[in-house]
Amino acid sequence: MPANHQNKTKVVILGAGFIADIHAESFHRFVPEAEVIAVYARDPVKAEAFARRHHIAFWYDDLERAIHEAGADVVDVCLPNFLHCQAVLTAARAGKHVIVEKPLCMSLEEADAMIAACRQAGRLLMYAEELCFAPKYERVRQLVQEGALGRIFQLRQCEKHSGPHSPWFYDVEQSGGGVLMDMGCHGLAWFRWMLGRQTQPVSVSAHLQTGLRHAQRTRGEENSVVIVTFANGVLGVVENSWAKPGGMDDRVEVYGDGGVVYADLFIGNSALTYSEKGYGYALEKAGTTQGWTFTICEEAFNQGYPQELRHFIQCVQQGTTPLVTGEDGKAVLELLLAAYASAGLGRPISLPFQPKVNKPVDLWLTPPPS
Amino acid sequence: MPANHQNKTKVVILGAGFIADIHAESFHRFVPEAEVIAVYARDPVKAEAFARRHHIAFWYDDLERAIHEAGADVVDVCLPNFLHCQAVLTAARAGKHVIVEKPLCMSLEEADAMIAACRQAGRLLMYAEELCFAPKYERVRQLVQEGALGRIFQLRQCEKHSGPHSPWFYDVEQSGGGVLMDMGCHGLAWFRWMLGRQTQPVSVSAHLQTGLRHAQRTRGEENSVVIVTFANGVLGVVENSWAKPGGMDDRVEVYGDGGVVYADLFIGNSALTYSEKGYGYALEKAGTTQGWTFTICEEAFNQGYPQELRHFIQCVQQGTTPLVTGEDGKAVLELLLAAYASAGLGRPISLPFQPKVNKPVDLWLTPPPS
Amino acid sequence: MPANHQNKTKVVILGAGFIADIHAESFHRFVPEAEVIAVYARDPVKAEAFARRHHIAFWYDDLERAIHEAGADVVDVCLPNFLHCQAVLTAARAGKHVIVEKPLCMSLEEADAMIAACRQAGRLLMYAEELCFAPKYERVRQLVQEGALGRIFQLRQCEKHSGPHSPWFYDVEQSGGGVLMDMGCHGLAWFRWMLGRQTQPVSVSAHLQTGLRHAQRTRGEENSVVIVTFANGVLGVVENSWAKPGGMDDRVEVYGDGGVVYADLFIGNSALTYSEKGYGYALEKAGTTQGWTFTICEEAFNQGYPQELRHFIQCVQQGTTPLVTGEDGKAVLELLLAAYASAGLGRPISLPFQPKVNKPVDLWLTPPPS
Amino acid sequence: MPANHQNKTKVVILGAGFIADIHAESFHRFVPEAEVIAVYARDPVKAEAFARRHHIAFWYDDLERAIHEAGADVVDVCLPNFLHCQAVLTAARAGKHVIVEKPLCMSLEEADAMIAACRQAGRLLMYAEELCFAPKYERVRQLVQEGALGRIFQLRQCEKHSGPHSPWFYDVEQSGGGVLMDMGCHGLAWFRWMLGRQTQPVSVSAHLQTGLRHAQRTRGEENSVVIVTFANGVLGVVENSWAKPGGMDDRVEVYGDGGVVYADLFIGNSALTYSEKGYGYALEKAGTTQGWTFTICEEAFNQGYPQELRHFIQCVQQGTTPLVTGEDGKAVLELLLAAYASAGLGRPISLPFQPKVNKPVDLWLTPPPS
Repeated sequence: MPANHQNKTKVVILGAGFIADIHAESFHRFVPEAEVIAVYARDPVKAEAFARRHHIAFWYDDLERAIHEAGADVVDVCLPNFLHCQAVLTAARAGKHVIVEKPLCMSLEEADAMIAACRQAGRLLMYAEELCFAPKYERVRQLVQEGALGRIFQLRQCEKHSGPHSPWFYDVEQSGGGVLMDMGCHGLAWFRWMLGRQTQPVSVSAHLQTGLRHAQRTRGEENSVVIVTFANGVLGVVENSWAKPGGMDDRVEVYGDGGVVYADLFIGNSALTYSEKGYGYALEKAGTTQGWTFTICEEAFNQGYPQELRHFIQCVQQGTTPLVTGEDGKAVLELLLAAYASAGLGRPISLPFQPKVNKPVDLWLTPPPS
Repeated sequence: MPANHQNKTKVVILGAGFIADIHAESFHRFVPEAEVIAVYARDPVKAEAFARRHHIAFWYDDLERAIHEAGADVVDVCLPNFLHCQAVLTAARAGKHVIVEKPLCMSLEEADAMIAACRQAGRLLMYAEELCFAPKYERVRQLVQEGALGRIFQLRQCEKHSGPHSPWFYDVEQSGGGVLMDMGCHGLAWFRWMLGRQTQPVSVSAHLQTGLRHAQRTRGEENSVVIVTFANGVLGVVENSWAKPGGMDDRVEVYGDGGVVYADLFIGNSALTYSEKGYGYALEKAGTTQGWTFTICEEAFNQGYPQELRHFIQCVQQGTTPLVTGEDGKAVLELLLAAYASAGLGRPISLPFQPKVNKPVDLWLTPPPS
Repeated sequence: MPANHQNKTKVVILGAGFIADIHAESFHRFVPEAEVIAVYARDPVKAEAFARRHHIAFWYDDLERAIHEAGADVVDVCLPNFLHCQAVLTAARAGKHVIVEKPLCMSLEEADAMIAACRQAGRLLMYAEELCFAPKYERVRQLVQEGALGRIFQLRQCEKHSGPHSPWFYDVEQSGGGVLMDMGCHGLAWFRWMLGRQTQPVSVSAHLQTGLRHAQRTRGEENSVVIVTFANGVLGVVENSWAKPGGMDDRVEVYGDGGVVYADLFIGNSALTYSEKGYGYALEKAGTTQGWTFTICEEAFNQGYPQELRHFIQCVQQGTTPLVTGEDGKAVLELLLAAYASAGLGRPISLPFQPKVNKPVDLWLTPPPS
Repeated sequence: MPANHQNKTKVVILGAGFIADIHAESFHRFVPEAEVIAVYARDPVKAEAFARRHHIAFWYDDLERAIHEAGADVVDVCLPNFLHCQAVLTAARAGKHVIVEKPLCMSLEEADAMIAACRQAGRLLMYAEELCFAPKYERVRQLVQEGALGRIFQLRQCEKHSGPHSPWFYDVEQSGGGVLMDMGCHGLAWFRWMLGRQTQPVSVSAHLQTGLRHAQRTRGEENSVVIVTFANGVLGVVENSWAKPGGMDDRVEVYGDGGVVYADLFIGNSALTYSEKGYGYALEKAGTTQGWTFTICEEAFNQGYPQELRHFIQCVQQGTTPLVTGEDGKAVLELLLAAYASAGLGRPISLPFQPKVNKPVDLWLTPPPS
């Protein structure tokens, strides 16, 4: 076995859903510096099954106990959005370092509380935006830094599929919003990552659609197009969908005055298969595997999950600040809020934008008077 | 740091060229169970530079000392082909486990000696064919096993670029042959991997070309097309080139009576870039980076290098037999010999084929009387 | 029916620039029912050269004479935008049928005058939007009609290159605007074509950028992103650029609740070439032909030029209404005006929108008080 | 020059199957200089239906009458292979120009008779190899002529699908062979077209497979790989299949010492569609239209059918020799015979090769003593 058991950073994963599975497998395969020692899920059956599936020593159905008693150094929050804040505050108070999945939380107040709690506890808070670590997108960012494209003037990022697995996404009280909340945060974070966090966003303009594939099961938006203008003149376009069948799609386009790049994480990494009978797994949310399919491999690695988790563990071990912090998550949340408000009011929203609202989608569902 | 220093399997790399660089980086980034503690190169300047570049503790310009004195458990042979045998025999005699880069060696006699030496020493011998570990090609193999394609009837594998870096490749006394020796071994191994080593090859038919880009610097072949027929009726086509500009190309096609798969490791994994100015690195042997390029990331991971090395270290630690052994390397060598003989005689060669020859290309350059 | 010399519909082309070349070649190769008998250009040298190049019997440097004297039945307007109106009025008064290149003209008043003149003269007026005839895009439209994608909720169309050839494009007095005027009209027309002209656009939201590749030579916008919302809930996104190097790019994406289509007219129809030396022509505005290029064939056929011209000639011969009329061109112009106004005012513009303005870009360069 | 009704070249099509449909539609849409005035099929029901479908004035179920009485200038032979000779001889004797679909006929004797008959009659004989006219492949050939790739050393052409429509293909008495006879002729012709007919082929080496998808219905081969070596050192690889599901596939690769080209006529020209429900037609022999499909447009135009037919009509009108003649068809047949013999004897066959055999596949099914 690689390492001595005591030297590894111990991790407790909160949550046993789709993303928690990806995290557990990523830790196991690619983060030798860490060991997942415990998992928490509200449902003990799920918690136990997850622990068995991933060979995790302990499982809990009590959040407080999982955080306080499992003996972990790091808490990895893979819970529904509305529980992010509580989990982070609890973890910080218990003296743990925290990595929390996107989107950060439900409101700017929650964000401030989470950041403050970790700071006061002297613990690291990482915002888990895996696109900042996806190998192909990082190569694209280096291309820009190498000057290959000249001065950037437009960015476009899309993430689309046919809808998430877990039911809580569709309950806006738990999720905070629909596809924009769930996936638009990726593109918004990626814009800041590509341009540098000192590049100020100036305004956000959003168009949201509902009543598509999931009309019967959610009030949240199912398709979104958001435009962000930046102080340096750059335009960012982010498109997201819960209503696009055919499998996960994640791609970027970068336009500069000296070049352009197109990068695609799924079709762009796949084998092309024709199968009359069909087979097991093509790629995330693929639909049928009969006929032509795009067959993926190493999905999590291509998307950057192992790399972001390994980065955090190394930060914990070395005492360094993560590349993507709670402040970054809060900045993305502010852009999300501006987007929902823009859609609700039918006009662009200027930044900074600091509304008081329980959850972001309220700005669209029940917009304040203009 | 992840692991306790004593538990790691210690590796000495023999060679400091292009492939050794890939191995060192692969060990460093992806094989936490191992530590590269020493490197050997004939040229002390190169050895020292390599050690510095990869943060390796010791360097040697004496092969015997590197193997006997560095304290490694594993010897990783990344030397010119003609030195494989000597290195493996020395390593086996020193009680080391050995992984040796393709192609195995220069003759069946050498192969037998290498296999025997490791067996007598009770040590593992792995043949480093990375295509057996390339994630995309492994997904393809699983597709076949899942029955997605029905019964396979044809395989095709290509690996092509504009010629290797190191001068020794072009000296057939050191290399044993040209592109077929250098890269045809990949496809031939991959056929056995896909069909199972119990599937007997029946005959080999080869066409070799010379006098292309490297006409002035080598007697070896620069372009090859080889067809292998198998006892179960499958046809394998492998095409290789040292004369194809535009960057490394590695792809497979698998045809079954119920489906087909196309998989590409380079263009098929890349970002598409247009740069007026050009930039640093697109992909292996890319040529110009002005205009359109295919920009790769994680090349070594995509090709299977880290995975094959990690597999070997785990075999060493667990005492299990590697998935690809010296016997596999010998079987590939037999196919290479048959291919050179086929090209020399202008007709297919039946298997088994066990000629006595100093180096494979001699069967083409100076074919025996028919 | 095709015809002998007397039965052919006679055409005079007004203009001898890039688009006129495409038209002349399209007529020659693919429209046997017509014959181009004359060409007009302001510069007699150009007019004569064009006539010689295309084997056209007569050339003129006097617009009135070309229209009145050449003996044509059809006038094909391939002039700078600011001359469209005058040319169409002159042609209508001379009793000719007219096809006019996009965009229709500089103002709604001009549009009304052009439509009225042709109606009063009892002559056909076709708006030459070739995307309505591009074979691949027409196949996409049939897919939608076949129900392959279910109910459409989002459309996206992009046309991007590194800037037009002729100098007049860069003078907004002659062009009326920059890339949005020049190429955004395609996507806006295509939305109406895909959804049906009865599907009302509700609002237009635009973002324009300047100061890119052509900063020194134009006040017009060089990059644009426009969003159109339709009464049936569909969202249309059109992106255009004069600042994207690497060659012409024209693509669509169609999203429905039962499927999706991606179609690309250039890279998506090309051969992939690597050339160390370079060669003649890859595709429109390709830049370098060294390194990797996308090599096109039958560009005009793929874009729909011959098909739209043949359609018009058949309408003239059969007395039927063209599929794309002056009214369609006016509707597109209204969307363009709304887009410029949106960019100027920084908010969406509702339709209908009927401003009085000399040229569309004025709504952005000198926006009226909000 | 195109013509009025009397000036058009009149064509009678012999055959009413799949290829005849393509020819009729190609003439109708793209060859204004010609008019298809009659069709022959053995089955009067089919003949009448074909005539109605294509608005053809006359239909026949008597071959002699169709040729002698319909008043055509040109006979277009789209019959089963075993009837090519008889049809061409009859047409020549009747003083008609003839274009005959590939492959030319069943034996070299037939070929000589067909060539001689047309020459004696002073009539043109064109061999309808559409790949010599496919726009994308012609652009590739120009790239080579422009020097974009340097000196060519390898060509590869593939045409693969899941098996032809009409039953006669599967009866080797009518077809002369399986997929090699049906589709290998394309690649063999294309090699000569690319290299020039003066470039002598030296030897042919073939591998054929049977017992795949069509095991129950044919003795002919279903999958073939053929290698041709040329006197100038070029290697040609042609792969064909009747056993590849997922739709028609036609692609070429051209390798030169200064470059490389990849060109694909189907996937490489298509739109990419995902449809949950499925739809009408994706591309030739596509299989399911549910899930992902490659949706083609203008298939016949992309493959070169209209262009080859228009070329022949222009030759007839101008009295010039077609670019692809009966002699070319005979040369291809010789290569086919050598390929079947090579597969039958298990060794390469040198050229020239002029066996006496009733039909090509006999050289494989019952090879002569070596």
